[in-house]
Amino acid sequence: MEIINFGKGYPANVLLPHTLMQKACESHLQEEKKLFLHYGHKQGEEKFRELLASFLQQNYKTAIEKEDLLITCGASQGLDLICQHFTKPGDTIFIEEPSYFLVFKIFTDRGLNLVPINTGKNGLDLAELESKLKAHNPVFFYTIPTFQNPGGTTLQEEQRQKLVALSEKHDFLIVADEVYHLLDYSMRSPFPFCHYSKRVLSLGSFSKILAPGLRLGWIHCCSTLLNKMLEDSVLGSGGGFNRFISGQVYSFIKLGFQQQHLKLLIGSYRLRSGALYYFLTTILPDVICSPPEGGYFLWVELPKGINAQQLLERAKKHGVTFHPGYKFSTQKKLNNFIRLSFSFYDCDILEEGIRRLAKCF
Amino acid sequence: MEIINFGKGYPANVLLPHTLMQKACESHLQEEKKLFLHYGHKQGEEKFRELLASFLQQNYKTAIEKEDLLITCGASQGLDLICQHFTKPGDTIFIEEPSYFLVFKIFTDRGLNLVPINTGKNGLDLAELESKLKAHNPVFFYTIPTFQNPGGTTLQEEQRQKLVALSEKHDFLIVADEVYHLLDYSMRSPFPFCHYSKRVLSLGSFSKILAPGLRLGWIHCCSTLLNKMLEDSVLGSGGGFNRFISGQVYSFIKLGFQQQHLKLLIGSYRLRSGALYYFLTTILPDVICSPPEGGYFLWVELPKGINAQQLLERAKKHGVTFHPGYKFSTQKKLNNFIRLSFSFYDCDILEEGIRRLAKCF
Repeated sequence: MEIINFGKGYPANVLLPHTLMQKACESHLQEEKKLFLHYGHKQGEEKFRELLASFLQQNYKTAIEKEDLLITCGASQGLDLICQHFTKPGDTIFIEEPSYFLVFKIFTDRGLNLVPINTGKNGLDLAELESKLKAHNPVFFYTIPTFQNPGGTTLQEEQRQKLVALSEKHDFLIVADEVYHLLDYSMRSPFPFCHYSKRVLSLGSFSKILAPGLRLGWIHCCSTLLNKMLEDSVLGSGGGFNRFISGQVYSFIKLGFQQQHLKLLIGSYRLRSGALYYFLTTILPDVICSPPEGGYFLWVELPKGINAQQLLERAKKHGVTFHPGYKFSTQKKLNNFIRLSFSFYDCDILEEGIRRLAKCF
Repeated sequence: MEIINFGKGYPANVLLPHTLMQKACESHLQEEKKLFLHYGHKQGEEKFRELLASFLQQNYKTAIEKEDLLITCGASQGLDLICQHFTKPGDTIFIEEPSYFLVFKIFTDRGLNLVPINTGKNGLDLAELESKLKAHNPVFFYTIPTFQNPGGTTLQEEQRQKLVALSEKHDFLIVADEVYHLLDYSMRSPFPFCHYSKRVLSLGSFSKILAPGLRLGWIHCCSTLLNKMLEDSVLGSGGGFNRFISGQVYSFIKLGFQQQHLKLLIGSYRLRSGALYYFLTTILPDVICSPPEGGYFLWVELPKGINAQQLLERAKKHGVTFHPGYKFSTQKKLNNFIRLSFSFYDCDILEEGIRRLAKCF
């Protein structure tokens, strides 16, 4: 019995576009007389940023300028770069509670103090955020505003505007991790965060829409913020972060493959997310969970008296695992929640996983 | 009159292997059923590390194990990673004087104090290093031990062993930037530094032997040191640093192209370095300079009374530039030196550059 791991926040193997990427690489090799072999432009190649801006503009439905994009080695490296250039050890940042567990160490390794802001079913608690601004002076607020990881919630337009007003009044930045923004199954999400303010650094990535192995992403922000990061010492010595791959992904976008693949992903993940939600709520009617609107995850509140860590121990014996809620809490709370990812498995395996889980209740 | 820029520490455009890289990519696309699209192994793909170890072993003439290699996004990112995991702000490190100017900011951005150790014509001043150990407690000594940038000198076997003995006695690490080690035109260089001690972190890169745009390099060290870096938070979230490209470079090595290209580079650079040395010492006999044995650079001592910065101002008017010595000094000294790179231009342009320079004396 192979273990079904609901913890995997990965694209499914069958949804990695090997054939399209092969075609894009072949086309790139034939069309481009010169590959991107030399030291590159620090910000990323202009030609690539131009095409990326146009792809994003088409999908974001708001103007995106190539001047406002900095090419990175993925969202995690981009986030670390932001910490490097906008914080110093001892600084405080605000972070959603719950949030993506693997960023905690990126922040604490930079010596930052994390202040959690509750983000429940109704989204970010702006009143709590405002009240905590009396005692703290955060450099930035790190948010996953659309299809939050793990919560699945989306910060609505009005809340975004209130948050921007607070950031102006209290002089903090907004770091918006928007890697799931394009995986929109409900087509009702607000604009990406840069649409609302110049105080935003938005993290984007090809990991969720093309392939994680590329380690290719971008930061979208105004030139004042961007220029600060161009002073980076590693960038100064090594040139652009990921030049050669950006040439191949240039062809992938240019040939229309990125748009086509995004459509496939949205269709597939919509199906999977709906299936997991259906199996969960019919097989385990006592759990509480909202219908998924995008991204990778369901955030599931357990019935009273069931502890996620204890459930996990029982689940392992039945061949199924997941991430318990405390992992997503800076304070190791939220142990009445579990996160289930629907990105990695086909619907029949998702069903089998929930049936196994049901045996542990 | 196009400016001749002796400052360019780049491979020549004609020495970037576009055709071989195209062939390698094509072969990779045909042979590999699955591209490296998924999240990767944190240390770098085993298959790639195995082949890289075997390539290095063949050229280093000493045993290299795949377990001792960590794949990076180039030497600069590798160096920053070492700072991240082995130092904290306020720590002291020792550095050669002169040294590669673009690393200074990597160190100071990490809050490190730099203590210079004189490295003149006769190589590293080990007596000075030992005496400075009385007042300082460095975390590591950063050295470019072979074909030093900018000095061109190579730390000899006996000095390496003395340095290792000091590092053991005084408990500091040796960070050996060995990106030029394989560009050996005299075939007399000692082994790479890891051969002599387990206290060494060696930085390697494909930037000088294949192409800078790949942003692909490695750190070679023992598993105790390596495991510390595997705890990296960006690596934890994003997987291996440069997975997709390592697949294409795998094919480049496997097809024998890397060995073949290295041979071409050594032949070409040997010719260029000899030519620049010849033109310099015949056209400008009053300067002092040692015959180049490897790497990219000549380090030229100016005749008494000539200041490098003033010379540069005059040189610009004659269509030639270079890096003046103070840039390579943590204390902005050494302004009676200039660094000339021979990697970027053909011999006839190197000659023209020196003729232009001679007009400024």
